[in-house]
Amino acid sequence: MDAESEFVHQIALFAALLCACIVLGHLLENSRWINQSITALLIGLGTGCVILLTSGGKSSRILEFKQEFFFIYLLPPIIFNAGFQVKKKRFFQNFMTISSFGIIGTLISFAIISYGATLLFPILDIGYLEIKDYLALGAIFSATDSVCTLQVLNQNETPLLYSLVFGEGVVNDATSVVLFNAITKFDVSDTNLTTALEFFGNFFSLFVLSTLLGVFVGLVCAFIVRKLYSGRHSTDGEVALMILMAYLSYITAEVFELSGILTVFFCGIVMSHYAWHNVTHSSQVTTNHAFATMSYIAEVFIFLYVGMDSLDVEKWHFVDNNPGKSVWASVILLVLIMIGRAAFILPLSLLSNLTRRSSNERIGMKQQFTVWWAGLMRGAVSIALAYKKFTGSGKTSQPVNALLITSTISVVLFSTVVFGLATKPIIRLLLPGSNPAESSSPRSVPLLGNGHDHDHDHDGDHDHDLESNTPSFKKLLKSPTHTIHHYWRNFDDAVMRPVFGGRGFVDPLT
Amino acid sequence: MDAESEFVHQIALFAALLCACIVLGHLLENSRWINQSITALLIGLGTGCVILLTSGGKSSRILEFKQEFFFIYLLPPIIFNAGFQVKKKRFFQNFMTISSFGIIGTLISFAIISYGATLLFPILDIGYLEIKDYLALGAIFSATDSVCTLQVLNQNETPLLYSLVFGEGVVNDATSVVLFNAITKFDVSDTNLTTALEFFGNFFSLFVLSTLLGVFVGLVCAFIVRKLYSGRHSTDGEVALMILMAYLSYITAEVFELSGILTVFFCGIVMSHYAWHNVTHSSQVTTNHAFATMSYIAEVFIFLYVGMDSLDVEKWHFVDNNPGKSVWASVILLVLIMIGRAAFILPLSLLSNLTRRSSNERIGMKQQFTVWWAGLMRGAVSIALAYKKFTGSGKTSQPVNALLITSTISVVLFSTVVFGLATKPIIRLLLPGSNPAESSSPRSVPLLGNGHDHDHDHDGDHDHDLESNTPSFKKLLKSPTHTIHHYWRNFDDAVMRPVFGGRGFVDPLT
Repeated sequence: MDAESEFVHQIALFAALLCACIVLGHLLENSRWINQSITALLIGLGTGCVILLTSGGKSSRILEFKQEFFFIYLLPPIIFNAGFQVKKKRFFQNFMTISSFGIIGTLISFAIISYGATLLFPILDIGYLEIKDYLALGAIFSATDSVCTLQVLNQNETPLLYSLVFGEGVVNDATSVVLFNAITKFDVSDTNLTTALEFFGNFFSLFVLSTLLGVFVGLVCAFIVRKLYSGRHSTDGEVALMILMAYLSYITAEVFELSGILTVFFCGIVMSHYAWHNVTHSSQVTTNHAFATMSYIAEVFIFLYVGMDSLDVEKWHFVDNNPGKSVWASVILLVLIMIGRAAFILPLSLLSNLTRRSSNERIGMKQQFTVWWAGLMRGAVSIALAYKKFTGSGKTSQPVNALLITSTISVVLFSTVVFGLATKPIIRLLLPGSNPAESSSPRSVPLLGNGHDHDHDHDGDHDHDLESNTPSFKKLLKSPTHTIHHYWRNFDDAVMRPVFGGRGFVDPLT
Repeated sequence: MDAESEFVHQIALFAALLCACIVLGHLLENSRWINQSITALLIGLGTGCVILLTSGGKSSRILEFKQEFFFIYLLPPIIFNAGFQVKKKRFFQNFMTISSFGIIGTLISFAIISYGATLLFPILDIGYLEIKDYLALGAIFSATDSVCTLQVLNQNETPLLYSLVFGEGVVNDATSVVLFNAITKFDVSDTNLTTALEFFGNFFSLFVLSTLLGVFVGLVCAFIVRKLYSGRHSTDGEVALMILMAYLSYITAEVFELSGILTVFFCGIVMSHYAWHNVTHSSQVTTNHAFATMSYIAEVFIFLYVGMDSLDVEKWHFVDNNPGKSVWASVILLVLIMIGRAAFILPLSLLSNLTRRSSNERIGMKQQFTVWWAGLMRGAVSIALAYKKFTGSGKTSQPVNALLITSTISVVLFSTVVFGLATKPIIRLLLPGSNPAESSSPRSVPLLGNGHDHDHDHDGDHDHDLESNTPSFKKLLKSPTHTIHHYWRNFDDAVMRPVFGGRGFVDPLT
């Protein structure tokens, strides 16, 4: 069999497995325990076993995972869709809490995991690791898997929790990748105050520049769609342009070594705020669902692959002399993840509660526990970062790197399957009001799908009335978020909408 | 710069160019001469020039064209969308004419081009070619580029012409690829009646099996969507499943060495007839436009690439000693294409006219000329087949292969640009009633977009009334198409729809 026809066979098998995942995932959706990610993982594991047996123990996978493939093709649609479908109003209302969880929280978690690993790994005697490796481990295991968790939280019943976990997940994704890249590039051989400051300056400018790039591309897209297509609409052209410009924003950020994740997330937010309102109704429906579908397929693809790849003999081969070490490393990492997450959820929730006036906006103990639990799972981002760091150019052949890869896979599998299975019952126990399994639209629950419709109900005149009295400086101190929102609305209406379009500005199509 | 970041740069440039093509294409759409394909070709040529100059004459392209890439990723969405959006009623009404044009016509054209090349190429003294190479040339240049032409015909003003050219284009795509594959595999060293019969038997079974596979996958998809998702709809799941199963049908056909093109075309037809009616309204809108958008992006991508690749120095290098030969080969091929096409349009139109009763259903001289002209352009399929045959494993290094590649590129460029530019004025001259440039929905003109809505108006009860009298054998002889259609309707209503769903059977969502 030549290489080309082998490739065709691999693609055919993968397409068939993806179909199976979607169908089985749908069938099992109402189950008490299981969710889409676990289904895909288990199908991947099962297929891996079959391939392992039929190939006589040679290989367990049909396509080799390259981390470029993940970062160039699979991650952008997921993050873009997250930005596109996010309930902007709620996201920006909880902006301070979300970004403190997502940025400061991730940094705390990163510090604890790195420090803990530096202390505990030498006891295991797994081989020599540099400071850089420990820092990278911290970044790798600070990346939560929000995608998986969101399938069990219901945004209508626990809106605050929902926006916290979702928002944190997105900012966390970006933070951990930016952190990881900063560590990889940074020279940590001599660390002093200057280099530390430089590091954080670098980190901060990456954040700001990436965000600005995303906003810029989103605005350009809105402008083009508004000027070109109004009066002479072409649904296919509009949809194609939105998809391509979103992708362009991501890939441009990567070219300039910014964070593509942050860029494409903010590009999604800006597109849904301006460009989406300038297109035909068909384009609106199509973009909503096409983006969600692409993201959905990418997610299923990742979990399927992770399941299949976790049996890869080559990696396990290097640890089979001392499997105990790999197990212990995984246990240490899991414990550090749990401590690291608790270490920022409790203090930051307290801080957040201080700024909230009404008691039903506060984050209670049960909620804090739920947020903590919901962020324990580790997923595709961790796997991809671990591959980037510890494989490639023959690195896997060093036992310590192979061990870290297998430990990462173990942590991801264990947290996704075991924690994932326990999540639905735990949430039902803690928050009896919520009924995660019986939501009305199964797949579209997590902020996604119909997101726009809800969003606009909230975005409407109602808020204008509430805030129509001019805010003073005193008020700004008292309720900063509302005041900022008020100024933003004024600016948006006066300057932005006339140029870039937006709801009700060009064609009241909705 | 390492390989990975270079790859990111290439993708970024390509994404930016695709955006430029879409925007410029939209701006120039109302122009008298130009169309989307020509725009993309010219942008590709321009970018090729710039890269050629900046790289100091080393290379003109940023991504290397692999024919697998074309056949595995770009062609399936285009053909699937064609099947999905085709007006089934009209397609099957003109089925005999369309398939005679598409199959017999392509075979005639193939025979004339092959024979003509065998006679004329030795005069040019371009080097030794086997019989197989001449046969391959015939197949390569029998593949028309219907995509490009359809942008100028208007289906509301010239419905008959439209369905003829469109239908022929699809069947022609399939025929020429099947023919090409059959030739590549076939041993032509000793041809006699037995081997010729075997060849046609092979060809025929490929046709039938590919069609059956497509129908089968389409029905399975309809069945799954009907059973699983009814009552508990999930738009993303439905759309994802339809996309993946369509792709699965294509890639399965490729695995079994059938014609993926035919398979995915019929899969599209079956899906739009059954599965499409079983999903939510959002899914219907989304699939309609998402499929059209994917097809659109793939088309633009192809033309952009062909433009960029046509300046590839490596290939021109081998012919620059005798550029005259390449020009003459191109001229010969163009003349043969024109003769080959005329040779089947005239007799087959006459035959078709004999079976048509009403005079306004007949294909007049002007119409015949238009159909002839509309099929003269050669496009991506020809390029891809030529690459498959004459490049790879160092074949380009043989001067004769390089010459055939450059001649193919020249024929494609010349026919697309020159014939393409003349098409709009010619059609306006010949068919004054049609006004190609001022159609209502610019991009959605070619059978695509809104195809479903129109289709169902035609598919409705009106036809039932007309055909409600039981047809006799005599009638079958008189008007075979209508009688077959009547039996099919009965069978569809009694057997197929209750199992696989369909319009008005499950949820009257439209």
